[in-house]
Amino acid sequence: MEPVKVGICGLGTVGSGTFNVLVRNAQDIERRAGRAIVVEQIGARRDSPQVDLTGINVTRDVFEVARNPDIDVVVELIGGYDVARELVLEAIRHGKHVVTANKALIAVHGNEIFRAAAEQGVIVAFEAAVAGGIPVIKSLREGLGANRIQWVAGIINGTGNYILTHMRDEGRAFEDVLAEAQALGYAEADPTFDVEGIDAAHKLTILASIAYGVPLQFERAYTEGISRITFDDVKQAEALGYIIKHLGISKRTDDGIELRVHPALVPKEQLLANVHGVKNAIEVMGDAVGPTLYYGAGAGAEPTASAVVADLLDVARDMATHHDYRTPYLAFSGIVEGDESLPILPMENIVTAYYLRLLAVDRPGVLARVATILAEQGVSIEALIQKEATEGELVPIIITTHRTREANMNEAIRQLEALADIAGPVTRIRIEHLDENV
Amino acid sequence: MEPVKVGICGLGTVGSGTFNVLVRNAQDIERRAGRAIVVEQIGARRDSPQVDLTGINVTRDVFEVARNPDIDVVVELIGGYDVARELVLEAIRHGKHVVTANKALIAVHGNEIFRAAAEQGVIVAFEAAVAGGIPVIKSLREGLGANRIQWVAGIINGTGNYILTHMRDEGRAFEDVLAEAQALGYAEADPTFDVEGIDAAHKLTILASIAYGVPLQFERAYTEGISRITFDDVKQAEALGYIIKHLGISKRTDDGIELRVHPALVPKEQLLANVHGVKNAIEVMGDAVGPTLYYGAGAGAEPTASAVVADLLDVARDMATHHDYRTPYLAFSGIVEGDESLPILPMENIVTAYYLRLLAVDRPGVLARVATILAEQGVSIEALIQKEATEGELVPIIITTHRTREANMNEAIRQLEALADIAGPVTRIRIEHLDENV
Repeated sequence: MEPVKVGICGLGTVGSGTFNVLVRNAQDIERRAGRAIVVEQIGARRDSPQVDLTGINVTRDVFEVARNPDIDVVVELIGGYDVARELVLEAIRHGKHVVTANKALIAVHGNEIFRAAAEQGVIVAFEAAVAGGIPVIKSLREGLGANRIQWVAGIINGTGNYILTHMRDEGRAFEDVLAEAQALGYAEADPTFDVEGIDAAHKLTILASIAYGVPLQFERAYTEGISRITFDDVKQAEALGYIIKHLGISKRTDDGIELRVHPALVPKEQLLANVHGVKNAIEVMGDAVGPTLYYGAGAGAEPTASAVVADLLDVARDMATHHDYRTPYLAFSGIVEGDESLPILPMENIVTAYYLRLLAVDRPGVLARVATILAEQGVSIEALIQKEATEGELVPIIITTHRTREANMNEAIRQLEALADIAGPVTRIRIEHLDENV
Repeated sequence: MEPVKVGICGLGTVGSGTFNVLVRNAQDIERRAGRAIVVEQIGARRDSPQVDLTGINVTRDVFEVARNPDIDVVVELIGGYDVARELVLEAIRHGKHVVTANKALIAVHGNEIFRAAAEQGVIVAFEAAVAGGIPVIKSLREGLGANRIQWVAGIINGTGNYILTHMRDEGRAFEDVLAEAQALGYAEADPTFDVEGIDAAHKLTILASIAYGVPLQFERAYTEGISRITFDDVKQAEALGYIIKHLGISKRTDDGIELRVHPALVPKEQLLANVHGVKNAIEVMGDAVGPTLYYGAGAGAEPTASAVVADLLDVARDMATHHDYRTPYLAFSGIVEGDESLPILPMENIVTAYYLRLLAVDRPGVLARVATILAEQGVSIEALIQKEATEGELVPIIITTHRTREANMNEAIRQLEALADIAGPVTRIRIEHLDENV
């Protein structure tokens, strides 16, 4: 099948990330889409140091991309309202499908853009416009399609959440953390869109429309920022059992729809209260499913690219009319049973950390014997706690280890259980830090 | 457009829930799918007290549904391996699309079923097979399609998580909480599938195939249950900064794929450690997007029905060849601009709880004046804390309120700020409990 030919407009953070993900994961993406997705042209005012453009057709005029007859899909990543709107409408007029990450554009001009796309029979996809890499539009629009949605509440601006997180953790003032966020590149030189809630209101407007089936009405959103939150408020809230978060909330009531962005006290035990730093999360309440929550990176080059490319996959599948090109059952086409290039590993080969609980007879040298057995198996001890002796003079020993191979741990436990000093079986529970080294 | 005609096989918890959701939300579902989805026939050994079957064609022979020429989609909700496998294959042979919530069936017989479906050109959808109402299959298969998935880790058995949660919260033994869960209907009379990790291994097998593009290989999953976890382990883990959870973990390594279900110590600050009771959550690490997490109800009548009906929506859209029947941009068709039947509410009309911080002059009667103003506006005080006087004899007063109308709170704040006793503006932050009354 013919590859899908993509034109990327804008080569900033997200444009560079999108190009790099398409190139790096090209093989997997082709298996998922049932056809290749290739970058045919890039329109950008300047090149990007993050991207190797060797062999790529680059133009300085983004409208050239919108009119290029060889291009199937235009990816709009220039941002802003006016030029972006013109570009998207021009691409639609030329029969191109459009993928955009532009929340301001969709929130303000979406109704017009969708009408134009429907007239031309093309697709406009905008997963990346809300909460970066979190597939929340797909989840809300398709995955929760059975439900009457009752409310949506989310942390949908990473900059604001970064500031509130650091105010709380470090007892600092708003202005102080904002300056730091600007220095680190998490906040713009003009932070108004982020800290005054306009960016969040754009995203909430889109979520509300998808939740309830109403037109986009950004102009009716209530927007209140976090610039007046003091550390004293953060402390008082904490004492009352709350954490202050900047939320976008939309709720269906008998009278209509609430659509509001403002700081809020959230009970500490709620998952949303535990979303920290630049991360985003959206909680959705449906009448059938109850509460569900979607968490992840709400911004950044590759997280946003993840959503842009997911939209390209949807467009690629939708362009194909054959059933063979719908989403493969197991996500990838060409899965061969018995192919051992990516085998399921036997448990002996996994690598993880461990918690061990032993009952030892309280006599000299027992710790040394335990430690020696672990050392001989290459198991590195992180912590060892010897408890008070219980009745019968048995002493519980708690050990946590660094990451090691399961086979070595099995052998160590076998030897530990064979020691005369150790009573009964060794309790072994694996420790999973859920960091990059799961 | 013709309605999609559905035959439901099995009228237990999930079958009843599916029928009820399809009936209750029929209008919204039709707007989302672009066509109606109607129950044409039900095959069940007995009726369900949860369902009003008036006017519904009911048969005691589920295979009659699989062969009914009027039916487009067979929904398999009878569970188990053998009859379910026969039923699904028979439906496929008769050219029906199939939706199933049966994790055991897909994990063990999925490769065979997908082959049969591909030969017949029909769809088999199984979102409800993993984590109930959480759209994790769609998220992983479509929403994260840009990524090379690095690992998947999840709490994917609600019964096990219920037991571990109550052991920890109440200091109780495994057997004790299990007996309670059985009495409450959260655990089966024979709890082996849940507490020994077999059910979780079925689900993990499916997630791993979708994450990495490998065939379903349930027979290679490592499975360890929670029946040997003691309260002492829970306590020790807590002291070390961990919470014990029953996890399904699958990880891509250079040598192959880890596929394992076992109890694990998870650092307390991780979101997964804070998923309690019967809830499920799955964390997915992708190379572009980083970590994302999906949380919600992993079982139950309507949560599972939510996923079954989402699959029916996908099948309905896929059956249509016209682009008009792809997912509507704003999730619903027929959105009319200017239609005020579901208006966006002005902020004055929203109802929420509030945190107020006032600076008061420390003289007699100030609290009474503050309380009177709030009472006159119908604002009910939840807590009122008067702090020590700071310099200048100004006393901070912290107030939290019950839910009230924003307009009333605005008026109360206006009057409070007009009091001679109150210095400067009143700080007002809304409190959002994120419960059913958001």
